[in-house]
Amino acid sequence: MKNVTANEETVIQSSAFLDHWQGHRKLTRKVIEAFPEDQFFTFSIGGMRPFAEMVLEMASMASHGMNGVVTGHWTHVKELGHHSGKSTFSTKQELLDYWDEVTGIIENYWPQIPEGKFGEVVKAFGEYEGEVPGIMLYWVDNEIHHRGQGYVYLRALGIEPPGFWDRY
Amino acid sequence: MKNVTANEETVIQSSAFLDHWQGHRKLTRKVIEAFPEDQFFTFSIGGMRPFAEMVLEMASMASHGMNGVVTGHWTHVKELGHHSGKSTFSTKQELLDYWDEVTGIIENYWPQIPEGKFGEVVKAFGEYEGEVPGIMLYWVDNEIHHRGQGYVYLRALGIEPPGFWDRY
Repeated sequence: MKNVTANEETVIQSSAFLDHWQGHRKLTRKVIEAFPEDQFFTFSIGGMRPFAEMVLEMASMASHGMNGVVTGHWTHVKELGHHSGKSTFSTKQELLDYWDEVTGIIENYWPQIPEGKFGEVVKAFGEYEGEVPGIMLYWVDNEIHHRGQGYVYLRALGIEPPGFWDRY
Repeated sequence: MKNVTANEETVIQSSAFLDHWQGHRKLTRKVIEAFPEDQFFTFSIGGMRPFAEMVLEMASMASHGMNGVVTGHWTHVKELGHHSGKSTFSTKQELLDYWDEVTGIIENYWPQIPEGKFGEVVKAFGEYEGEVPGIMLYWVDNEIHHRGQGYVYLRALGIEPPGFWDRY
């Protein structure tokens, strides 16, 4: 085995990426559920957005992003949900329903990603140029980042968040 | 192109994973730097750990984790830095130096990952069984998660954190 290394091997292939992403989305859904209805839309620390705004951003990027990857038509970043200034949802359940709708959108679009697409450079949301895998990783990472902030909000509210490993 | 899809294609290969991880670690380093010396070790919201403790966990997992992947010898989770109960570092600079040391450890170990390792199941830190890519993604995701919490700490302290995209 000496000198035979994994240098150019595959670490994550398409189906594993999808599972990884949807697993994270399941955890985020549990974090949404853990918020009290009113605090979900209003609680903030240090002038940051309420968690509902962050969730709308995640869901909007995922939905419009998958559309962009598959069809080549990108919604401009300024037209994404989180740029409307405030959430267009007024109850937690409405946002949970949207979350579930996006779960289906990702699931339906995924098998339609064209061959070779992961090697292509795109201009995501009309602004962010990069290879498709890097663009998609950004969506997942952005969700983890803001969800981690939601954990702090919950702790500050005296609520125990779900375990970070709980993605089922 | 119809019906020809990217279903089993590679999304992330070895070198891209390394770049992605080290990029995130560069951003985390900037977040560490943004903390005032004292608050780095003491500031907390909702009973959570100070950011220094989270940073020690990230660095310790990365360092001992890479050792485990390459050599097959896993430090037990109870012996990792963050399980000592408190940071063994007393200045920000000491922890930044450790951070940089770990950057080198990852860089040196990476090309030594044996062929086929990404397809293997391991028992990481003597406790967590899973395929190597999932285990490694956990380290990166855990860093993003806790760094996001560091962002809230900084905002609560009235400090503007670096941009989430700033991984250079």
